[in-house]
This record gives sequence, C-alpha cells and structure tokens, in this order.
Amino acid sequence: MTTPWTQRYAERTRRMTSSTIRELLKLTAQPDLISFAGGLPAPELFPIEEFRAAADTVLSEMGAQALQYSITEGYPPLREMIVRHMARYGIVVDIDNVLITTGSQEALDLIGKVLINSGDNILVEEPTYLGAIQAFTMYGARYVSVPIDEEGLQTDKLEGALRTGPKFMYILPNFQNPAGVTLSLERRRELVALADRYGVPIIEDDPYGQLRFEGEHLKPLVVLDAERLKCENNGKYGGNAIYLSTFSKTLAPGLRLGWVVAPKDVIHHLVQAKQGTDLHSSSFDQMVAYEVARGGFIDRHVRRIREVYRQRRDVMLAALERAFPDPAMGVRWTRPQGGLFLWLTLPESMDAAELLKEAIKDKVAFVPGAAFFPNGGGHNTMRLNFSNAKEEMIEEGIARLGRAIHRQLRAGRVAT
Amino acid sequence: MTTPWTQRYAERTRRMTSSTIRELLKLTAQPDLISFAGGLPAPELFPIEEFRAAADTVLSEMGAQALQYSITEGYPPLREMIVRHMARYGIVVDIDNVLITTGSQEALDLIGKVLINSGDNILVEEPTYLGAIQAFTMYGARYVSVPIDEEGLQTDKLEGALRTGPKFMYILPNFQNPAGVTLSLERRRELVALADRYGVPIIEDDPYGQLRFEGEHLKPLVVLDAERLKCENNGKYGGNAIYLSTFSKTLAPGLRLGWVVAPKDVIHHLVQAKQGTDLHSSSFDQMVAYEVARGGFIDRHVRRIREVYRQRRDVMLAALERAFPDPAMGVRWTRPQGGLFLWLTLPESMDAAELLKEAIKDKVAFVPGAAFFPNGGGHNTMRLNFSNAKEEMIEEGIARLGRAIHRQLRAGRVAT
Repeated sequence: MTTPWTQRYAERTRRMTSSTIRELLKLTAQPDLISFAGGLPAPELFPIEEFRAAADTVLSEMGAQALQYSITEGYPPLREMIVRHMARYGIVVDIDNVLITTGSQEALDLIGKVLINSGDNILVEEPTYLGAIQAFTMYGARYVSVPIDEEGLQTDKLEGALRTGPKFMYILPNFQNPAGVTLSLERRRELVALADRYGVPIIEDDPYGQLRFEGEHLKPLVVLDAERLKCENNGKYGGNAIYLSTFSKTLAPGLRLGWVVAPKDVIHHLVQAKQGTDLHSSSFDQMVAYEVARGGFIDRHVRRIREVYRQRRDVMLAALERAFPDPAMGVRWTRPQGGLFLWLTLPESMDAAELLKEAIKDKVAFVPGAAFFPNGGGHNTMRLNFSNAKEEMIEEGIARLGRAIHRQLRAGRVAT
Repeated sequence: MTTPWTQRYAERTRRMTSSTIRELLKLTAQPDLISFAGGLPAPELFPIEEFRAAADTVLSEMGAQALQYSITEGYPPLREMIVRHMARYGIVVDIDNVLITTGSQEALDLIGKVLINSGDNILVEEPTYLGAIQAFTMYGARYVSVPIDEEGLQTDKLEGALRTGPKFMYILPNFQNPAGVTLSLERRRELVALADRYGVPIIEDDPYGQLRFEGEHLKPLVVLDAERLKCENNGKYGGNAIYLSTFSKTLAPGLRLGWVVAPKDVIHHLVQAKQGTDLHSSSFDQMVAYEVARGGFIDRHVRRIREVYRQRRDVMLAALERAFPDPAMGVRWTRPQGGLFLWLTLPESMDAAELLKEAIKDKVAFVPGAAFFPNGGGHNTMRLNFSNAKEEMIEEGIARLGRAIHRQLRAGRVAT
C-alpha cells in the first residue's frame, strides 16, 4: 500500500524486516499451544513480593527522586552494585565504566549508533542473536559470519573473517542465543589474541553467564583482554572489549534494565548517544531493582533460577532422547550447560519453517533457525527455549514436536 | 586524548557535541544555587502516595505480567486511555495509531531513525527544542530554521524554507520549549495549508499542551490537518502529521513514558525501529502509570499542577518587572500562557554565555539561548524555567539575575 509516508521513509527503514520471532509469537498466542519460541523467563520465579516491598520502600523514602529526571549514566548505587558484581567475575572497573541501559537491547542500539558507519562489516557468530542483527542493521551494518560448533565460534575459521576488516566482532560466549553453546577457554584465548593482532574490538554480550547449571565458570573475554594488557595499562581497565549484561534473566525483563561496561571514552560517547535516545532509563525501575537486588538477594534468587532451569533443560533433553532414539535419523541437538535455549538440527532435507506450519497444527511452536543467520542458511535448524514452560508441558511439547517431525520425514520419503 | 577507540567511532558520533544543558547542570549542582536552567517539574507535586498504591495494586494483582516482557506497541489499557484522552482534544484515532515510547525523547529518536537520511534538511523553529536537535543530528540531519515571535513560528517566512525541500517540519505549537510562545490559530491554519501544498509532513511535539494557565485551547496541527483531509479520508485519521506527547509533565518524568500518534503505516515502521532500540518500554512503569492516571485522577492532578505553575510564572514575571523597570534598557521577555519556560532577550551587546559565568558567581543559573539555535545565533537570549523553584526562590533568583545583568551592562558601557 502506498501512503503519503511511503516515499518518505529513510533508507535504513526500507532495509528493515519485521522480527520473525515477534511475528511468530503473534501466531502462537493460542492458549493451548506449547511455545518453545519465546525467550521468556519463567514468570512463576519472579520475586513479586520482593518487588512489592522494594517499590514501597523506594516511594516512601525517596519518592520524589524516583519520579524525577535523573542522570543519563544511571542510578549510582545500582552502578556501584554492578561494579562489585563484575569484580567477582574478574572484571575490575569503576563506576565511570558502567552505563545503565534500557535493557541490553538499548546497549546494542547505542553501540550501533556510536560505532557503525553504513556499510561497515560486523563479525558475528553463525547463528547469532536476532536482536543484535536488528539493532546493527538499522545503522547499515553488513555481516561477515563465522560458524559455531559445540565449543562455540570456530576460531580456526576466524582469521579469514578478520582479514575482511570488520568494525567489531559481536560474541555471545556463554550459552549462546540461539544455539546454547559455550565458547571454550582455549578458543577464548585464541579469539582475544586474534582480535588484538587484527585490531578488531570485541563486543561481549553475556545475558546468561550467571545461569550456569554445571561445569566451571570460564573467564570473560573482557578479562582475558585485560590480562593481555596488564603491563601496558598498569592493571587498569580499558582495552579492546566492551561487555554487556542485563537484569532481564536474573530479576525481571519487564523493567528493561541492562548495562554496558566499557573504557571511559567509549562510555562518554554512549552517554551522549543515550541522551538523544531516551535521556535516561526509568529512575523508578533502577531504584526498585537496586532495592530488590541488594543485600545478597539477587545471588540467592539466581541460585533458585539455575536449579529450576537446569531441571527443565534435563526434562527437555530426556524428552528429545525419547522422541528421537535413533541417531541415524539425523536429528541432533546441543546440550547447554546453562542459559535458556538449545538448538536442534534436522536432516538436511527438511525445512524448519515448513515444519513450523505443521507443528502449529499440533499446538507446539519454536523459532526456525534461519532467522539467526544474517547471510542466509540454517534452513534445517531451530531454537528451543526451555526456561518458560513447566516440566510436564516441556514433555508434552517435545512429544508433539517429535510426532510432527516424524510425520514430515515420512511425507518427505514418500514424496521422494 | 587518542585511545584504541578513537579511530573507530562512527561519523555521526564525531558530529556529536555534548548537551550544553547537561554540562551546565553539572556546574550548577551547588546546593545554594538557584537554577532556572533545568526543565524539571516541581517534585513536591508528584503524586507519590498514588504511585505507592498503584505499584502495590499492579504487583499484587498482575505481578507476573508487570515483570515480564511485553509487546512493543505498549500496554493496551494505557493506549486505550490515551485514545480517549486524545479524542477530547479532537484527535480521533484508535489504539493502533498509538505507540508508547520511553519518554518523548525516544519518539524523537525513532522518528529520526525511520525518516531521516543523512544530509536531509529538517525544518525547525528558531529557537527549537535541544533534545530534538540531539536526536535528529545523530541521523545526519541538517536544519533549515524559521524564526518565531510572540505568536510562534512566523508563517510569512515559512514558504522560503519549505522550498528547500525539508524532510519534515518539527513544531512545538504550545508554550514552546525554549521560548514559551504559542502558535496562533491563524498561523496554525497557514502552516497546515503550506505543509500540504509543499508535501512536507509535520511532527507536532506537544509535551505541555495540557498545562495551559489561561486563554483558550487551540486546535492541534494534527486536527487541522485531519479536517483538511476529512472528505478524502472519510473522517478517519491518517494525514500529514505525527503527534507526540508525554506523561513527564502531567504525572512524572522519572518513568520515561511518552507516546506517538501517527498513521498506521508510520506506527508499523516505528514499532520495528523500537524493537531494535529497546524492545518495549518498561511493562511495570506502563501498568503503574495507567493505574495512577485512570478514573480521572490525572485530570484532577493536572489542574493542580496548572495552578501552581501559573502562580510561579506570575511570580517570575513580577520579579522581572521589578528587576528591569525601564523598557529602554532593552531587556525583554515572553509571557507564556502555560508550560514551564519563558524566554529572555538581552541587549544585542550582551552575551548570555558570558553572563552565565557571572551569574553562577551570584548563585543563579539559566540556559544560554544559543544552545537552541541549530544554525547559530541567539547569543543574547536565555531560557528561564519557572516550574521547578518555589516562589520565594524565584523572587530571589530573578533579583540575583537582575543584579548580574545590570553589573554586566555597566561593565560593557565602561569597556566601550
């Protein structure tokens, strides 16, 4: 449809395509459908009572401050808490290295705003997070992608991609969205060394790092980068990496609170960009989140989330084993050590988008993997979320998905 | 200072200059300084108790929904409330014409994202809102500006500016920030007719429209545009204008909640842009704001705000009369019928930025007007906020400002 506005949209708008996930979620809003499509935390774990008490305290004791304009950088006590939290992961920074953002999504937008010129190549994992593609594409990004396997980005294929001169690399090292895989320590070291050699900055997106169910915590890229620089920098933070995280998976996503850790000159530019974007994130939500999280509550709460998500992952893995007992069938999946997602690969002959139409008839949904490949590919892959549905729903949903896949496979054999 | 990041910033970032207002506010954070510089609402009017009750209700009754991800478009009951509110001002739309934004600032950012190609000319009033300049400049905007007087934009000078082919015009018709002036009805009609003739869309920014202290409400540009289109459009909304407003001046700015009213295809693009920017505005804040505002509370509350701000404006006008009794001195100011700001013009020989340094010594601050002129000018102007300081502080602050100006004037005469 042509309207008076059609000719007026900017070039970047004409490149926009609607989020596949969001459009899908509209189709899957039937109440009896079991959805593995979203990336939603389990709502029954939200600490609602703690939020109620915190909102009451904040409004009783600091009401005028909570409702007034505040500084762009973010609520200082919340940033100080983040500084202490980061230190436990070996990320030694001070409050001026931290910017609060309106969800991690805004951090991705601000990074795009501050760093991307139209036509710049961005190096991403293949597959990678759809929200990052959406944010960066708005600033005219092109993509050079490096495939991943069970140990994350295949660093032996990284050098060729780095030679194309990407503006930065965007990496999700822990329980990656969408594939659920974790970058091994050896590959982290290789990646940081190669980034340094080619002078390519690293954007490390770590929304799920705290949700590790088992195995050992691995050093963040930003820490390995800082270690590399230790002699040059006198031990002070300020290298080649920017680190992002969020309260969306540890407290609640509805408040839209994330953060960026970056060298101070980068923070300065991100702050200027944020002034033009939304001035600051909600004063009220920042103060309430601080009040809920403080005093060690968030650590106890994260332990509880981990336990529940670990069980749900186990239930999903067991259900997949039951649904696809024969490895020769060619249905494979990842075994995440944390996070919210696993990744399923169908036989080459199958198309996950086609399968989704069938699956929706069977009242089960997932995200076809092609959405996560910025340069095409992934037609026979899908992302499955295990954090949102309860255990019995996961069992039933995977059984339905299994039946839909088997039916499609039989139909395919008949057709051939 | 050159850092590893310096060479990596995008072109748009290199054009950024920090917000003059924000940098100034840092200087003026001394407790005994009387600041007319900010645009802060009066915090003692915030309905803190109502927010406390609302947060409690929302978390008790809909806690999981308030803390979960939600749709990009915004909380439907809040959008329905906005639809009803808009109808009272003659803006007849439905819920799909309304998008909730993270403050009006995000609406400006999204409009820039969706409409501006680098190098596009944007038509603005001179002076105009600094936040809009910050948002649009990030997308490479250039500016063509039309001067204002006591009746707002000088429409007799509009046609020349329209002939340069601007992408859109950005207009603040009511109690304009920074100048406090209101576009007369006759000029509104001329502006809408000219916009139509030249095919230039209108972005109507109306954060203060409800804060009218006296005189008659004037039809919004979007209504005059809709009337023009009535026959063509069957009375349905969908013309040449986008309308923005906010809860920042009527409830509280700390929650960062604004809205856009636009034709549906424009909303569709803004929603896509918002998905990549922050996914959605805080679910919690939207639900709390709805709970506070509903049932007519916001109307009663706005009446109270109007009364207090009217008194403060009167106190500031009276204090200015006392400070500058002699019109021959050449100090002039606007007499706003609403809003938060008035605009003071010094004799041509004076420089407001120089004066500010003196004024800060006298413990009073304002914003030098030059910040609001995207193409230069306004060296002898300043913006004064009358909503934030209490009456006795306004009297004292204007007395201090008067002394600083008289002193500067005498020094200027001696120098010449």
